[in-house]
Parts: sequence; C-alpha cells; structure tokens
Amino acid sequence: MPLTLAKHIEVALRQALPDRQQYFLHEPQFEGNEWKYVKSCIDDGWVSSAGAFVDRFEADLSRYTGVKHAVVCVNGTAALHIALKLVGVERGDEVLTPALTFVATANAISYCAAAPVFVDSSLDDFGVDALRLGDFLATETTPKDGVCINNTTGKVIKAIVPVHVFGHPCRMDELKTVCDKYHIAIVEDATEALGTSFLDKHIGGWGPASVLSFNGNKIITTGGGGAILTNDTALAERAKHITTTGKTPHRWAYHHDEIAYNYRMPNINAALGCAQLEALDGMIEHKRALADRYANAFSSVDGAQFVQEPADSRSNYWLNAIMLDADQAESRDEILKYLCDAGIHVRPVWELLSDLPMYQDCQAADLTQARSIAERIINIPSSADLGA
Amino acid sequence: MPLTLAKHIEVALRQALPDRQQYFLHEPQFEGNEWKYVKSCIDDGWVSSAGAFVDRFEADLSRYTGVKHAVVCVNGTAALHIALKLVGVERGDEVLTPALTFVATANAISYCAAAPVFVDSSLDDFGVDALRLGDFLATETTPKDGVCINNTTGKVIKAIVPVHVFGHPCRMDELKTVCDKYHIAIVEDATEALGTSFLDKHIGGWGPASVLSFNGNKIITTGGGGAILTNDTALAERAKHITTTGKTPHRWAYHHDEIAYNYRMPNINAALGCAQLEALDGMIEHKRALADRYANAFSSVDGAQFVQEPADSRSNYWLNAIMLDADQAESRDEILKYLCDAGIHVRPVWELLSDLPMYQDCQAADLTQARSIAERIINIPSSADLGA
Repeated sequence: MPLTLAKHIEVALRQALPDRQQYFLHEPQFEGNEWKYVKSCIDDGWVSSAGAFVDRFEADLSRYTGVKHAVVCVNGTAALHIALKLVGVERGDEVLTPALTFVATANAISYCAAAPVFVDSSLDDFGVDALRLGDFLATETTPKDGVCINNTTGKVIKAIVPVHVFGHPCRMDELKTVCDKYHIAIVEDATEALGTSFLDKHIGGWGPASVLSFNGNKIITTGGGGAILTNDTALAERAKHITTTGKTPHRWAYHHDEIAYNYRMPNINAALGCAQLEALDGMIEHKRALADRYANAFSSVDGAQFVQEPADSRSNYWLNAIMLDADQAESRDEILKYLCDAGIHVRPVWELLSDLPMYQDCQAADLTQARSIAERIINIPSSADLGA
Repeated sequence: MPLTLAKHIEVALRQALPDRQQYFLHEPQFEGNEWKYVKSCIDDGWVSSAGAFVDRFEADLSRYTGVKHAVVCVNGTAALHIALKLVGVERGDEVLTPALTFVATANAISYCAAAPVFVDSSLDDFGVDALRLGDFLATETTPKDGVCINNTTGKVIKAIVPVHVFGHPCRMDELKTVCDKYHIAIVEDATEALGTSFLDKHIGGWGPASVLSFNGNKIITTGGGGAILTNDTALAERAKHITTTGKTPHRWAYHHDEIAYNYRMPNINAALGCAQLEALDGMIEHKRALADRYANAFSSVDGAQFVQEPADSRSNYWLNAIMLDADQAESRDEILKYLCDAGIHVRPVWELLSDLPMYQDCQAADLTQARSIAERIINIPSSADLGA
C-alpha cells in the first residue's frame, strides 16, 4: 500500500519536473553577475567585511524588502542571535518559538541565555497559529507592568520568533494583534522567505527586527550569510556595532565598549549576494511556475496534497512540499526511501524541536497540529531552474 | 621634540619601504590561483559549507602546520569559542588571557559564560610571560583534585589562551611547564601566527586545541575565516559536530543532539584560502625581507626600536612594530598622527582588555609589562608586497 502511494507520488513529481537523471532538493543558480562581482572583490583586494559590496547589498536588501535598514551577517543564525538581543532578550528571559522550525531558531534563543517556549503551528501556513497562541497566552501568562509573565516559571516572555516556513508567510496581522496585547516583541524568522509578501507587503517589517538567510540551500545564497532587517535606525546602528566587535570608531585606537560579536558578512560573500538579488525575481517566477505544475500534477493523487501558498500571500515557494493524508503518515519514511532511491531527493520536515534532547525539558504548549504536520510533510525538489 | 622623533621614524620607514604614494598597514595579496578556485566554486554551484575546498583547505592547513586536524570556521572568534568548549570551559569557569590582545580573545571566553583573568605580557615576545604567570599562579591559586582553584574567587581556572602577538611566538616550552603543573589547558591563539615556528616546529600543537584566523588583515585571508587545530581526533570530530549545528548524520532526518553553532566556513571562502595558502611561503619570505630592511633602517634611530622575532623562533612577521623608548611613550599619539597625516598608515596596539568597560571588573595580575608595551608600540606597514 505505501509503495502504491510512493509510486503515484513519483509519477506526479516526474510529470511536473523537466526530464533529468536525478533531482536535488535545492540547488543555487549562478547565471548573472556573480562572477563579475566576486572577481572585482579579488581584483581590488577587498574581500573582508569592510567593503563596497557589503554596503551595496545592505542597500539593495532594504530596497527590495521595503524595510528601512538591513545589516548583513555571517549567517542567519548570527542574525537571529543579534535580532533577539536588539529586542532586549536577556539571560533568564523566555522566547516563544514554533516547535516546527530549524534548530537555529531555538539555538539563537539559547545563545542569549534565554529559554524557548514552544507553541503550535497552523495547518494553513505551518507558521505560528495565532488563535492557539492567543489561547496559550490567555491561560498560561499574566500581564504585569507592561510585560508578559509566564505563570508556570515566573519569567518574562520577551519575544516571539514566528517562522515563515518554506517561504509561506505566517498570518502576521493576527499574530501582531495577539503579541501587542501581551507586550511580546516580534522577531520574524524570514530566513526562508526573501521575496514573499503578505497582504501585498514584503514580509520582515511586522516587528522591531526580522531575519533573512542566504545559506547555500536558500532562495539566494552568499555561500553563508544572513541579514537583520529593521525599520528602526537606532536598532540598525546597534546591530552594526555589536556585529563588529563593539568597536567605537576612531582613526587608530582599538576601543570596544561591550561584549560583542564578529558577525559581519565578508565583502566577497556580499558580492555574490548582490548578483543573486538581481536574479531573485526571475527565480521566484520559475519557482512559482514549478509550484503550479506540482499543484496540477498532484490534483489527481489520492493520499497526498501539494502545499500551496496561504490566503492573502504571494509566496516565494522556496521549498515545495506535499502533505500526506493523516492515514498515510506512517508510510512517510518508506516513501522517502523509495523516492531517494529513485534519484529524487526528498526529505521530511524537521523533527519537532521540543523532542530534541537539549530542548525536551522546555515548556511547550499543546503541539497537536505541529506534530501532525511534522509527521506528514515531504519536501520535494524546488530549485528555480526546474521551473524555467 | 616628539616631532623630531616622528620625522626620524618617517625617514627610517621610507628608507625601508619601496617608493609609494601611501602605505597601508596590511593589504592582502591575490596573485595565485584565487580566481581559478573561486570561479570553480561558482561554476559548480558549491559555494556553501559542504564543499570540496572546505575539505581541501582543512587538509592543506593540517599538512602546513603539522597539526593532525584542522576544522575551518566562519572566523577566528568562532574558532576560539569552539576551542575553549573543546577543552571543557563551561559556565562559571575562569580562563587566563593576556590583557594585551585583540578583544576577541576575551569575548570568546565570555561566550562560554566563563570569565577572563588577565595576566602580564613578556617584554621579549609580547606574549604571556611564563615566569610572571608562574608567580601569579603560585600566590593566587591552589591545586585541588587535579584542577586549579582561584583563591580569590573559588572558581576553577580551566584554560589559558596564550596569544602569538604580531606573529611572534610565545615561549611555549616554558608556558607548557607552568600550565602542566597547574592543570591548565592551553589554547594557543595563533590567529596572527600562521607560518610561525618556535623551536623548529610550527606553532599550534602545544595544547589540546589552537586557533588560526584568516580575516582580511591576516597573513592569508578567506574574506572572513578561522580554524581550530588539534592533534586529537575525537576533539576534531567534536569540533566539526558543534560547528555544524550538532546535526547527527542521516540520509534525510534532521536530528540535532545538543545546542550547537552554525560556524562552518563556506566553500567559496575556503577556495580563496586554498589559493592563499599556496602563496604563503612566498609572502613570508617577502615579509621577512621587509623586516630585515626595517631592522637596518631603525638601527640608527634614537628613541625607537624595531621589534624583531624572539629567540628560538622563526616569525611570519605578520605585523611589524616599533617600540618607543619608555621616555618617549607620551609622544605616541602625536607620532601616530604625524605618520598617518604623511600617508603612512600606522596604529597603536590594542587598549589593554582589562581597561575596557566590560572587562574592567575582571581579576588581573600585575600588568606592568603589558601596560608598558601597550603605551610604546606602533605598528607599521607590513603587507608582503612591500618586501617583494
């Protein structure tokens, strides 16, 4: 039985995909000015973190996303760490995060010596479920002096990190209403969602700070890289300061005024980013075309559905996914193995972070929906050139 | 009077340097396979952290340094953080470090939630003074159950981070004798010293782990980058694991077994590193030739001496320096200004870390020598091509 479904899935995938020997989950595409810009770094000798491409990439990202400032970092994890610090997350605080996300989200909270509190995910967009979040906060927390106190631990819940999973945006309007009511700062984890809009606006501007990633598997890549986005000029300045070892500007002196980080993106990586960003809209068109073909191909498959963008959004379709019907969940691993063996690289979504050894003692809301999603998702090949 | 000395210094500098409009402190040099290797990354689409140049750069570094394993990271700060974790530095521990070093040394200790304890520097090599370290440990600590207890704080002094300042090696044989006696693990901060040997052996193998940097101002650069060196295979495996988000290998599953880091070097940066390492011996020859010329030129300057490699060593002469006579120390800033205005980029050494606001409450040994060095050092132009 599972093999029958696996074969049906294979047929649908091959129907949507161009004819190839094998299919990878996600490969970067370098067909623009990548080499030209990188070569100019090497020729000029400016490969490190002070360089013209760093400034330009930040300006380009700001223009593209419509968020006033971008501060580029060595990777998305570093960007998350700093974004949490920017909104005031400190030792002993708590931060809400979905259990259904990449481990970096919770790790960044840990780097601040804060603790994650896991909340449930939406069956519509796989992001934080605003309704269930509201229920959790209503029963488990008490507002006090303008902060949100966790009844169980007595600690302050300082922030939330909603993740735009696979590039599909969370229901940010509803989340913002809930978070404002409970004085919880929003740090959007938009590491997967560059190019995605919600309610006709690029994501990343709903809270004081948000985060992008340009890792090798992301929609655009700088090798390794990330960015903090913020509309707040003071926060942007602070982000630059604490990602640059906290050095105070001086013609020659080496004075540093706080414990800070070496997190700035090198110029050679930013050069790659500038070229990739130029190509982003074209790649999104291809990814959306591929998603359309998947949607058609899977419309006739019983037992699995293609995951489409949620309402009120335009997704970058970074990573395509199908969701098995609930009664097929237990076949997931057999299906994964069958497809991988057939040369079609697929993967499940992440293990719930609340199940990992280092986070299993953290507080968690009821995670019924997140667990159901995690058991049923299969990510499928998504490189932009597959939709070209 | 200070201007007279400044002018004498300028004359000596110009005598040693080739004729140029202006002189920078340190510029990278890309005259080998940099283009070729970086382009091959872009052509193959492997720019991120899993890639052939990452493996090759690690193997090349290991071969070059004679240390069994190298694990490359996003930068030297990240490498230091992980090296300290490898030797067991944990929350509440203390770590000895010179006050005379770049701020990253102490920051990496802070990232482990440990505290730096500042020790004095040697007037011979600017590294940790082994004799004065021994005196400090004899009076301020008590050995107990195989660990070193700080009498003042009651905490365990777990490790020491000797820094090979400007590329000149510390007296590692004497330091090792002291550290072994007090059960203190050595993490060599060799961020400035790739290519330097002491007692006819490349530095980096004196303790369980050591650290390199390939920042843009270093002797070779990867844009941003660093490496952990270790002769211990288990530590090398652990270093790879915790710099790669603690992910356990699996064909598709995303299981992570501890709070870990996103610290691996991207392939595009490693490609640059492979080419730079090929050119390193040639650059060291040029830097040593420049140092010879400086030594000659400054032999006739009253009031300042050129800093030469210490006994039993062969230095990479990463960053050249002159040391003002004690009675000229107060002219330092005027001399810096005069030379910078003349188009010769110079700088003082770092402010003592024990004077920075975030570290001024940390315990410190008597730092008379470090303070004297810090007041008197001027770094002078050192790019390899100036000695070609």
